[in-house]
Amino acid sequence: MSEERGLDYRSAGVDLEQAERTKEGLRALVDSTRDEHTLSGLGLFGGLYEVPPGHRAPVLVSSADGVGTKLKVAFRTGRHDTVGQDLVNHCVNDILVQGARPLFFLDYLATGRLESSVAEAVVRGVALACRENQCALLGGETAEMPDFYAADEYDLAGFIVGIVERDRILDGSRVQEGDRLVALGASGLHTNGYTLARRIVFDRMGLDVEDPFPGEDATVGDVLLRVHRTYLSALLPDLGLDGLHALAHITGGGMGGNLPRVLPEGLGAVVELASWEVPNLFRVLGSGGAVAPEEMRRVFNMGVGLVAVVDEGECGSFVERLLERGEEAWVLGEVVEGSGVRFA
Amino acid sequence: MSEERGLDYRSAGVDLEQAERTKEGLRALVDSTRDEHTLSGLGLFGGLYEVPPGHRAPVLVSSADGVGTKLKVAFRTGRHDTVGQDLVNHCVNDILVQGARPLFFLDYLATGRLESSVAEAVVRGVALACRENQCALLGGETAEMPDFYAADEYDLAGFIVGIVERDRILDGSRVQEGDRLVALGASGLHTNGYTLARRIVFDRMGLDVEDPFPGEDATVGDVLLRVHRTYLSALLPDLGLDGLHALAHITGGGMGGNLPRVLPEGLGAVVELASWEVPNLFRVLGSGGAVAPEEMRRVFNMGVGLVAVVDEGECGSFVERLLERGEEAWVLGEVVEGSGVRFA
Repeated sequence: MSEERGLDYRSAGVDLEQAERTKEGLRALVDSTRDEHTLSGLGLFGGLYEVPPGHRAPVLVSSADGVGTKLKVAFRTGRHDTVGQDLVNHCVNDILVQGARPLFFLDYLATGRLESSVAEAVVRGVALACRENQCALLGGETAEMPDFYAADEYDLAGFIVGIVERDRILDGSRVQEGDRLVALGASGLHTNGYTLARRIVFDRMGLDVEDPFPGEDATVGDVLLRVHRTYLSALLPDLGLDGLHALAHITGGGMGGNLPRVLPEGLGAVVELASWEVPNLFRVLGSGGAVAPEEMRRVFNMGVGLVAVVDEGECGSFVERLLERGEEAWVLGEVVEGSGVRFA
Repeated sequence: MSEERGLDYRSAGVDLEQAERTKEGLRALVDSTRDEHTLSGLGLFGGLYEVPPGHRAPVLVSSADGVGTKLKVAFRTGRHDTVGQDLVNHCVNDILVQGARPLFFLDYLATGRLESSVAEAVVRGVALACRENQCALLGGETAEMPDFYAADEYDLAGFIVGIVERDRILDGSRVQEGDRLVALGASGLHTNGYTLARRIVFDRMGLDVEDPFPGEDATVGDVLLRVHRTYLSALLPDLGLDGLHALAHITGGGMGGNLPRVLPEGLGAVVELASWEVPNLFRVLGSGGAVAPEEMRRVFNMGVGLVAVVDEGECGSFVERLLERGEEAWVLGEVVEGSGVRFA
């Protein structure tokens, strides 16, 4: 150690030029999501988005989320272009259930060592979902954090801002006894329960991502990476409906954890277990991990991705319109006096 | 393995009840940041914030950021209540330089195993800085990701939304030759260059966080954790000034990387190295790591946290007002024909 070389940032593990080149590569993806209200491109310190004119009393609705350990499945398969869609769609659903449509989105991508092709695949997924949800990708942060993340791993978080007229906010306050619960089908695990699901599939069942998933015409990787779907196009036409009293996004905590978030004090919900067939994916996980049914319902969505709370009289036509739009939708149960969720 | 126990989420590493209790503990902190435009509390899927009335053509300015490997210093000292301030102030500065004042903030906190006291300390810092910057903490995500983060480590990202009148956006377009660069002093490393700084201080110099920092009346931990300051109160009174042509937040890439972001095509900047004394902290890092001066300026802020680009005629009174507000401010250089930044 008599002759120590001078240190620089690159030898310490951060390559600013490489980061700059990667950002340049993302520019076209970001630009593909611009709309008429996007006033800035990449490169400014903050992204600029005009409040769309024509609102009487505009309220911004915002949410932050991550992808959780579903990322581990992406690492294991080497497929990085779906997790960005999971992230955007999750965030879109979280503001949709308050009655808002999305305006813009920002992402946070933190890695051990920035691999351009991986970053590009991740952001390609983000941008695709932004376009699908008519949402501008207004900015983001790509952080290179050596000795923090493994070289080939990353974490991904997202932030969304949407807008709703003040008198159109859905907050559950209009929910009443006798309202019907309408379920909208999930596309898979969405982004919840992956720590348990991976334990079951990879450790207990001894499967790997290229193996066929039991009972499905798809690999384990395909099934576990199924994109968390957006409910925007399914529900946007009905957001102004007087009979639509609340929406609940079924995420961590399952129906039992999420439905009560939109039920007023003194009201609970009954979910009829006979009203739908739990998809194969969840049945395989339940038996593969010998997970108790109550625990399954607490961790996973069980095939119900979103629940609408609808006035009894408007429920029939509401479900019919959803079916016409190609949605899987059914009456799941109803709102009753009490509290919490009872599965019957 | 003949008798395998059934799996549950908790044995897989995720404790939903514990997470729920932690969230309850954060409620008072979040509530302490509410303002008259905050329409939602914790618990909804998305946070609600009304667009403050009275704007002619409101534009939202948004930014996402992380704390980077400054977090490693927090882990090493066990002090978790400053990194949240770093995060919020960094984000506030990033939208301030476009002319915006903050409306609301959301955080993303990802951990290996959720330790209530650590999460509470982190969010306490976030909430403190939100109050200082008159910014509501509108929501956030706390993710427990075992076998992703070490049990006692976490990552922290943030997302801010602010507002500016369309004709008051600062985007550098009004910058012209002869404009003066006015420096505002930094409080320390802010949130940049920590991968290199830690390498120098801990590995090369062999110091630990409790050791005195050379030339400072403070420990290594104190010096490295100095909070990334906000420039909101320093600059808010002058944001509407016609002679204020641009602001640049000096973050990753230093002055050379950040000043050009607000200079129009065909204009560059000259920074007079003799105009200020580089703070002791940076001199110690430079000599301790034998880092070349150009590399130091590329990685660190060198004591210049923010640069204002001001009309020559208004520069004197602008600096005077900053000094009256207790700011460390000086004329750093000027805008010239050309491109990039030349240090003279």
